Amino acid sequence: MNPRGPGLLSLVPFVSVDHMMRIVWDIGVERMLVELAAYIEEDFRRWELFDKTPRIAAHSAEGVIELMPTSDGATYGFKYVNGHPKNAAAGRQTVTAFGVLSHVDSGYPMLISEMTILTALRTAAMSALAARALAPPGARTMAIVGNGAQCEFQAVAFKALAGVEAVRLYDVDPRATRKAAANLKGSGLDIAACGSSEEAILGAQIVTTCTADKRNATILTDNMIGPGVHLNAIGGDCPGKTELHRDILLRSDIFVEYAPQTRIEGEIQQLDAAHPVTELWQVLTGEAPGRRDARQITLFDGVGFAIEDFSALRYIRDQLDRTGHFVHLDLLADPDDPRDLYGMLLRHRPR
Amino acid sequence: MNPRGPGLLSLVPFVSVDHMMRIVWDIGVERMLVELAAYIEEDFRRWELFDKTPRIAAHSAEGVIELMPTSDGATYGFKYVNGHPKNAAAGRQTVTAFGVLSHVDSGYPMLISEMTILTALRTAAMSALAARALAPPGARTMAIVGNGAQCEFQAVAFKALAGVEAVRLYDVDPRATRKAAANLKGSGLDIAACGSSEEAILGAQIVTTCTADKRNATILTDNMIGPGVHLNAIGGDCPGKTELHRDILLRSDIFVEYAPQTRIEGEIQQLDAAHPVTELWQVLTGEAPGRRDARQITLFDGVGFAIEDFSALRYIRDQLDRTGHFVHLDLLADPDDPRDLYGMLLRHRPR
Repeated sequence: MNPRGPGLLSLVPFVSVDHMMRIVWDIGVERMLVELAAYIEEDFRRWELFDKTPRIAAHSAEGVIELMPTSDGATYGFKYVNGHPKNAAAGRQTVTAFGVLSHVDSGYPMLISEMTILTALRTAAMSALAARALAPPGARTMAIVGNGAQCEFQAVAFKALAGVEAVRLYDVDPRATRKAAANLKGSGLDIAACGSSEEAILGAQIVTTCTADKRNATILTDNMIGPGVHLNAIGGDCPGKTELHRDILLRSDIFVEYAPQTRIEGEIQQLDAAHPVTELWQVLTGEAPGRRDARQITLFDGVGFAIEDFSALRYIRDQLDRTGHFVHLDLLADPDDPRDLYGMLLRHRPR
Repeated sequence: MNPRGPGLLSLVPFVSVDHMMRIVWDIGVERMLVELAAYIEEDFRRWELFDKTPRIAAHSAEGVIELMPTSDGATYGFKYVNGHPKNAAAGRQTVTAFGVLSHVDSGYPMLISEMTILTALRTAAMSALAARALAPPGARTMAIVGNGAQCEFQAVAFKALAGVEAVRLYDVDPRATRKAAANLKGSGLDIAACGSSEEAILGAQIVTTCTADKRNATILTDNMIGPGVHLNAIGGDCPGKTELHRDILLRSDIFVEYAPQTRIEGEIQQLDAAHPVTELWQVLTGEAPGRRDARQITLFDGVGFAIEDFSALRYIRDQLDRTGHFVHLDLLADPDDPRDLYGMLLRHRPR
């Protein structure tokens, strides 16, 4: 054993998957989504402070591994995230993630956290935050086309944040719809399992698309979307993966997180690079209007941006003392004299 | 508690600082340096396979936080490393690091490891590997100017890998020299503490510079370096931080890890962008000559490159079973059905 135990400076709080689930249930899913959305909104309102480095992607035939760093000048964060569509066949998650938050002034990490569950939560909180500014007033019914891993998080976030009371589910795989419907029993939402996307969108003021196919699919065609609808398009999130017919985009007012990234990864990869879009932070600060009239089609083209992960990690850091769900990792070498790293090693030599 | 315990796919081996020190002593410092050098050499010999992404740096007034990713197509690795010169005054390390190794085909991490100690070891192994190709045959005496955290690692690596028997130490701070001399007692090296750099380099065939000052310093002037010497310049490793007088560079044959990075960070930031340099992998594969004659001054301008960290992480991964010094972290959410992330959360709801 380390005779003195690791020094205080060497310890970094770690939130495991199990810890994250305990945090979620201690706080409650809906309350946590509301609080996460508040952290994201706070960071979006100080958008111009952030270092908006593009994500660094390592592509392979099977998928992509990305590092997504950002900083507000005082705190630095990054997320490691993979996207491997064929993982599901091997019983693995298509997307897994973990993240780190650090002090800019010392470079020392202050948190390492699982982010597979946290990303699902922040993605849903982000969508609901956008819908609060963009969905028609009084919207109560949402269709969700694509009932995979993100589906239930979206449903619960829209209930907690955007006044949704009824959710209509559809997936090409009926087992996915059954899974989502079963999980949402007891959520307080009125759930309908539908046999087609046409059936799912009947009477819905909000339509969420979150399918997982990595191709240019047309989940929604132009004739399916009438005036006044808010579209929450989540599944078109990397080059070559889109869900909406181009004609829908041309009829919509489009809102994005960060235009340079969304033009590469989002639904708008189908449009000219000069097609006008509004960044959501401008709506949240009042610089740009959100929904202007009842017949307007609004589209949130969500791809997930590093600042949302930063907000989510910041939120989890602030829950450590509140919940106690973490352990310390002995991650950083902490010699008594910083120049004496070799001496520290010598003093730990077994006799 | 998680009633079933975390699934196998969710677990990632973690090597803490304490584990790393146990690994070092189980294997032995010298043997570990030799084995690390062999892993680095193996990767340098397949240089062209690697994805050589530049490091991604977040700069602030106090320092820098960097992510250094690379991949050989089958395995992906990255290192998080900070550089904060003022940390030492607060009892913190100037440089701390940790790293991750992942499967390219699934994106799943296979190792998280401390890398403060590991980076010190790989830096020394890299220097000694370069010296084996570049130092004059029969070199037995090395001067080390700058006796900070890297000093003893260099001394022991040159003993283990490059035939060095005597080390002459100098630092502007005599306490640093005393610390290094004390730590190297019992190393089997003949140690001399010197009162000036002029005294330290007397009779040395190899001169290592590894000072920590973040400025353009002149640790060695032109008249101090005679013919036939091998220079191992480690401390000039970021923009604005160099150690050698420009005239020494002009008289030397210069060897680097990766020219595009070294031209920004190394001693050669003082030279024209077109100044000829040789990448060390070319020497190791036999594509380019190392030392050609007895009067030649060779200079290894080492700045530390992502592939060395990759090699070091790969080495540590291969020691996990051999040493058993790691724990599993429950880092990745692992639902029974990958699409049922929310269901996993529900099944862990406390009753």
